[in-house]
Amino acid sequence: MIVEGAAMQFCTVTSLIYGEHEGLYFLLTGAVSALLGVLAVKVKKPKKMVLYQKAGFVATALSWILLALIGAMPFWLSHEIPNFADAMFETISGFTTTGATIIPEVEKLSHGMLMWRSLMNFLGGMGVIVFLLALIPRLGGQQNIFLMKAESPGPIIGKAVPHMRQYAALLYGIYIGMTLLEFILLICGGMGVFDAINTSFATAGTGGFGVRNTNIAAYNTYYFQTVIAIFMMLFGVNFSVYILIIARKFKQAIKIEELWYYIGFIVVSTVIIGINILPIYHNDPHEAFHQSFFYVSSIITTTGFGIGDVNHWPTLSKSIIIIITFIGAMAGSTGGGFKVSRLVLLAKEVKKEFKLLVHPRNVRVVKMDGKSIDHNIMRNTSVYLVVYLSIFLLSFMVVSIEGLDVETSFTSVAATLNNTGPGLGLVGPVGNYAPMSLLSKIVLMFDMLAGRLELFPVLLLFVPRVWKKA
Amino acid sequence: MIVEGAAMQFCTVTSLIYGEHEGLYFLLTGAVSALLGVLAVKVKKPKKMVLYQKAGFVATALSWILLALIGAMPFWLSHEIPNFADAMFETISGFTTTGATIIPEVEKLSHGMLMWRSLMNFLGGMGVIVFLLALIPRLGGQQNIFLMKAESPGPIIGKAVPHMRQYAALLYGIYIGMTLLEFILLICGGMGVFDAINTSFATAGTGGFGVRNTNIAAYNTYYFQTVIAIFMMLFGVNFSVYILIIARKFKQAIKIEELWYYIGFIVVSTVIIGINILPIYHNDPHEAFHQSFFYVSSIITTTGFGIGDVNHWPTLSKSIIIIITFIGAMAGSTGGGFKVSRLVLLAKEVKKEFKLLVHPRNVRVVKMDGKSIDHNIMRNTSVYLVVYLSIFLLSFMVVSIEGLDVETSFTSVAATLNNTGPGLGLVGPVGNYAPMSLLSKIVLMFDMLAGRLELFPVLLLFVPRVWKKA
Repeated sequence: MIVEGAAMQFCTVTSLIYGEHEGLYFLLTGAVSALLGVLAVKVKKPKKMVLYQKAGFVATALSWILLALIGAMPFWLSHEIPNFADAMFETISGFTTTGATIIPEVEKLSHGMLMWRSLMNFLGGMGVIVFLLALIPRLGGQQNIFLMKAESPGPIIGKAVPHMRQYAALLYGIYIGMTLLEFILLICGGMGVFDAINTSFATAGTGGFGVRNTNIAAYNTYYFQTVIAIFMMLFGVNFSVYILIIARKFKQAIKIEELWYYIGFIVVSTVIIGINILPIYHNDPHEAFHQSFFYVSSIITTTGFGIGDVNHWPTLSKSIIIIITFIGAMAGSTGGGFKVSRLVLLAKEVKKEFKLLVHPRNVRVVKMDGKSIDHNIMRNTSVYLVVYLSIFLLSFMVVSIEGLDVETSFTSVAATLNNTGPGLGLVGPVGNYAPMSLLSKIVLMFDMLAGRLELFPVLLLFVPRVWKKA
Repeated sequence: MIVEGAAMQFCTVTSLIYGEHEGLYFLLTGAVSALLGVLAVKVKKPKKMVLYQKAGFVATALSWILLALIGAMPFWLSHEIPNFADAMFETISGFTTTGATIIPEVEKLSHGMLMWRSLMNFLGGMGVIVFLLALIPRLGGQQNIFLMKAESPGPIIGKAVPHMRQYAALLYGIYIGMTLLEFILLICGGMGVFDAINTSFATAGTGGFGVRNTNIAAYNTYYFQTVIAIFMMLFGVNFSVYILIIARKFKQAIKIEELWYYIGFIVVSTVIIGINILPIYHNDPHEAFHQSFFYVSSIITTTGFGIGDVNHWPTLSKSIIIIITFIGAMAGSTGGGFKVSRLVLLAKEVKKEFKLLVHPRNVRVVKMDGKSIDHNIMRNTSVYLVVYLSIFLLSFMVVSIEGLDVETSFTSVAATLNNTGPGLGLVGPVGNYAPMSLLSKIVLMFDMLAGRLELFPVLLLFVPRVWKKA
């Protein structure tokens, strides 16, 4: 909360620069948030503090909801988003780096509010808790690992760096460094400072909030769009790869299987869509592949930036987009989705099963990156898939109550559970979530949180036994 | 093949009764099929014949394809379906009890051909191999079990009856008995003999081929439609339940958990859809719940009979229909889909995982019907889910190449992989598969076979090592 309060002052300054009175709301909310945060830190802690995984998960889920409540205040108090549910939707979408918006024309918002949206993407991206871990880790080793398990995107946590604090600092450094690099490259191309800051923030968190009504289409040069596309792709890479590169362990970095599958998915999808949409772009291969690469990179990393309407694309391209929405980025990146590594693990399990059918007497273990994978991780991955599908189907059912078309209902859930942002139909890259019913919005907010926190922490909130005293 | 040849003579007789010259094609094809069958039986077998699971699976898949090739001949030779691919599509759809048709107006077909379509549903229903097992089981115990594993719908094979031959005879008896009962009930209601035979055949196999352009809507009384709806539901029940009832083990029959989930899905879906479509049927609850129950029963059992267009139903009803298409019937029934028992097993696995999160020190086993479930079955079920989803998504991608709308592409794959028949959009209950491209049809034929044979046997055909000499 202290960090959130401090970050809001960044928006206060933005408002000041543009002479907007909305800065006041950031100043106030930020101050209250920071004050509450300080109080929480000062509160006398029980001497014996043992945080189990269960408690770590629940604490994470609750703190995200609390941060979202505070984060929604500036939108609501300033009446820039007069409806409280909408303000919550926008904030949860921001912090979970989904980028689904309820605002039809973002240019009507004040600069301070726009900055706050992007900043939420940025803060959310690395996970507010990993962030907090790096700054104020008071609790010792074991507990942090449980929090990390709840928050860190994906099943694999690198064991390379022994201490959580240093590990978090390193991740944080890479994150800020890459954001800065993107900012510099955009500035060098001639983009305005405000737009460049916001775009870099939203890219870093693979969030996808923009400051223009037409999103990234507003920056109408190949240079800008290609820079953004490449950085989206980079932020979707498992940060362990960068840590290994920094440690000059290039061989190990290259051996990470997930990386090759991730690149493979991007290349294959870009090529198929590029060929498929060629006629739409007047058989200009450069334009078609540019459009294709940008959107594939945007969707597989679950960023959700758009440079045009894709509703008129052919069905094949749409179906590939739907599929890569579910695949998502690499584990340990700021992206969402099911995660490439989980997919690879499941594929290996299937391969093993087929081998067993052909040669029933051989016993095999599933290996990844040369190491055998623990039986528990395999089981957890299967369970994850089942829970993920269950949440998806139940949400789809509830969202379809309001009676929008099947494509919109289906992809709105896909786009929020995977933290992508835009879907197809009414919620496509040129549409928004404003027309949806309150019930649907509540379900989608839940999906955004569930997707971001890897399902289990959020679901545990609903298990009655969790709330009983041990 | 002998059985198929014999069954064709049933159609020859039908043609004779109606004075149609098409009977000739059944007579010829049937004779050739039976001849080939007799030859195959007479061929000297290798003395040491050990059939492993692999070989059982492959043999099953190949024999289904062979039977479909022969079964397509009458359609093709008679030029009633002039296109060979379409004839294959219709035949595979028949034998796999899918009921997806490429014929816009079935009433244009001759009576013999209509009878053949329904008969394929009937033959396919119980699995041609279970059928063959009951009549000519030459191979001893162990091999049959492997064939049974490939064919019998669902993960659970009752151990109640020790000998495969008796077991198959018993299943066969129940199957014919129930079909006969439906036939009698329809006749008592005043349905014509031809229509009643065909409808009963198509219900028994949960196939869904009809002999009227408007399918079951042609039998426009509550009595007919309710009888059919109830029998669809009954044929979707695990036949072990009936065996237990016959053995007067009522307590055991009631304890089968899958049964209650199956009933639960039907009741809940019927109620929600019934309320949801109330306004469409002029707020007449009787009509709305009749429509709802009929279609839920038709879709969850993967029969696919229709009594009207559901494309104008609200999105909630459509989404429930999509979801129950995937759920499918009970294991060990003639229905298709993912199977209720698999879903229950996966749900239990998820529950276990959550319990482990809350109380990490307790070790638990997953139980079903009071028995603990083997670790291998759990793993196999997870793998099944992954393979099922992979086939689904890949097929969806390929089918979407031709550029039909997303709803049609998506549900056409869902309706074939789950052996349901009708989807939504162009392939809805009043549409058909004729307009689809050859590529899509090939993919959908593959999906029908894969769905019917529980994925693995068909996929094994594509594993190169299977074809190498051991």
